[in-house]
Amino acid sequence: MKQTYTNQQSSGPATAAGRPAPPAAAPTTGPLTPEELQLGARNHSMPLEALRRDITPPGLHYVLTHFDIPDVDASSWHLRISGAVEMALELSMAALRKDPAITVPVTLECAGNGRSLLNPRPLSQPWIMEGVGTAHWTGVPLAYLLGKAGVLPHAVEVVFTGSDQGVQGGVPQRYARSLPIHEAMRPDVVLAYKMNGSELPPQHGYPLRLVVPGWYGMASVKWLESVEVVTAPFRGYQQEVAYRYQDSADDAGTPVSRIRVRSLMVPPGIPDFFTRKRLLKPGPVLLQGRAWSGKGAVTGVEVGIDGTWQPAHLEKPAGGYAWRKWTMPWVADPGVHELSCRATDETGATQPLEQNWNYQGLGNNVVQRVSVTVE
Amino acid sequence: MKQTYTNQQSSGPATAAGRPAPPAAAPTTGPLTPEELQLGARNHSMPLEALRRDITPPGLHYVLTHFDIPDVDASSWHLRISGAVEMALELSMAALRKDPAITVPVTLECAGNGRSLLNPRPLSQPWIMEGVGTAHWTGVPLAYLLGKAGVLPHAVEVVFTGSDQGVQGGVPQRYARSLPIHEAMRPDVVLAYKMNGSELPPQHGYPLRLVVPGWYGMASVKWLESVEVVTAPFRGYQQEVAYRYQDSADDAGTPVSRIRVRSLMVPPGIPDFFTRKRLLKPGPVLLQGRAWSGKGAVTGVEVGIDGTWQPAHLEKPAGGYAWRKWTMPWVADPGVHELSCRATDETGATQPLEQNWNYQGLGNNVVQRVSVTVE
Repeated sequence: MKQTYTNQQSSGPATAAGRPAPPAAAPTTGPLTPEELQLGARNHSMPLEALRRDITPPGLHYVLTHFDIPDVDASSWHLRISGAVEMALELSMAALRKDPAITVPVTLECAGNGRSLLNPRPLSQPWIMEGVGTAHWTGVPLAYLLGKAGVLPHAVEVVFTGSDQGVQGGVPQRYARSLPIHEAMRPDVVLAYKMNGSELPPQHGYPLRLVVPGWYGMASVKWLESVEVVTAPFRGYQQEVAYRYQDSADDAGTPVSRIRVRSLMVPPGIPDFFTRKRLLKPGPVLLQGRAWSGKGAVTGVEVGIDGTWQPAHLEKPAGGYAWRKWTMPWVADPGVHELSCRATDETGATQPLEQNWNYQGLGNNVVQRVSVTVE
Repeated sequence: MKQTYTNQQSSGPATAAGRPAPPAAAPTTGPLTPEELQLGARNHSMPLEALRRDITPPGLHYVLTHFDIPDVDASSWHLRISGAVEMALELSMAALRKDPAITVPVTLECAGNGRSLLNPRPLSQPWIMEGVGTAHWTGVPLAYLLGKAGVLPHAVEVVFTGSDQGVQGGVPQRYARSLPIHEAMRPDVVLAYKMNGSELPPQHGYPLRLVVPGWYGMASVKWLESVEVVTAPFRGYQQEVAYRYQDSADDAGTPVSRIRVRSLMVPPGIPDFFTRKRLLKPGPVLLQGRAWSGKGAVTGVEVGIDGTWQPAHLEKPAGGYAWRKWTMPWVADPGVHELSCRATDETGATQPLEQNWNYQGLGNNVVQRVSVTVE
């Protein structure tokens, strides 16, 4: 009794510019809507105290599911590799598990992280700052499977389609995204069937997902069913309409890809249940957090105490695209203090003190500020 | 550099009735507040499609953390059993793992589930309907350890204290709750160190938690450090102020204990990303969900299609306090339909069609309604 909707591309309601409607209604300056609450209840972010951990367990790692978590029967499940290849492949999970496997530590962040802090506020999943997590992903390198299939010379992109389906911006679709061939061929791009050494949890894409280190999470297609090599750029909804840096609804914008440099801090002290305000006793405390960038290694983190910035101590990163721990000892003196942290990566990019606005609320990497009452 | 706050009891700001302030500000008819969003971002509910599963994995199972998830070192961690006992005990995890273990399947639900549907809306974690989950909890029966320690004849309650600390209603505290002796001695009350056969995840109480089958989740104290047998009723904040059925802030109210009968349905069809409206193709579809009660076995589930109720097929429950699967075939005809489900338990209690209001928004078990567009 399962019902199937085919993937449609760019056929939804048109804007003035002739493009399908953006993901939801126009940004608002009003209060939170029931629709945002529904999304916030389904999806979940990483409580910031989990920044203490090198690796984020399921349930603490952020999850964004566009539609429903599909009901997958792994025993009958197959991955299709097709399109502009010498030989199309149809692989069962048992077959995939026999291929050589790699494990990559990867920090994934939702491209919409920070959205609810924007004003006007784009209407979508109302992330605050915690749409992030780092896991060890184990599986078959995509390049290995593309090698088996043989990519034809005129191929330009690889399209990844999940089994999750729904309607977005008026367009019925299966979730699908593409990567340029040169990104798909990177040795660390993996078709993962394990997270942190255990079977992939349902909400993270069981039985198989793509993981694209360095890119925002939307690239790492979950519940992966199809890998199609194509000879023209993919124009699916999640590529052409969603996940674009736009100034307005009519702006064609530019596609979102790699994660902008960011750092976050474990809020020190103890919280108030309702307000989450932090209370700390006077004395020494070790401030700590993590920093990451999808564009290059993190080269520095500064910690601001009431606006005065000092360099933090950086530990070694766990991998090229995994977050890097930072620490800074502080002697808390009585009063209300504002703590913040700001990372810089090897491209010279650093986090902005004021948030940059865009129509879909994507790529936000504003400096985090934590108010602490010391008494 | 860890800082510790001692548990305080009923010493916060007083209301007119001389009791500490309730958990947050007065209920509101206004829009969602930033504080509620913060709570909704930290905690998470169970996406309703997870009702397909007998057992809920971490990340899909609901989580409510009052304060922060504590940073526990299991190797130095000890459980203290003290108070009105013949012999106080201090047990390491290694020692606890040598004791006889049981595994119990338990449906846990947050007492505040459904809160955000109330009007006026109590200000706290803004659950919609999905603050629930079912897991296999493995550990040592509490009764076994109480037997080892020897409960003195004048004991009346057992107080459980976690290592999570914060401020609520102006009262600094470690999270603590009590059970009457006769509940604490039930053979299925367990000090669990495994969830679904794996090590307890941090957010579910690692390294040890209490699980009280049949009671709302607040009784199942996480990050359990202390079990104290007492000779007078416990008057801690989470017992005396929070988790009470109150008509108003000044009403002393009655304590929340067992889970009221409830059922939920997997919303059929596919969702719209933003509105979560359901779209279904005409034809046969198997409606399904789960039903549970902490007060007695579920004896029936009715499914309403546009207000006409029919009995669903009930499968065998997985345990005395685990949910019971129900199914009902339906032939969807074109149009907009309202689907609902309503469970009854062996006490004769059934779910209300209209939600019952109380000051803290607790114990809500209103019938779920799912609107589906068939086309």
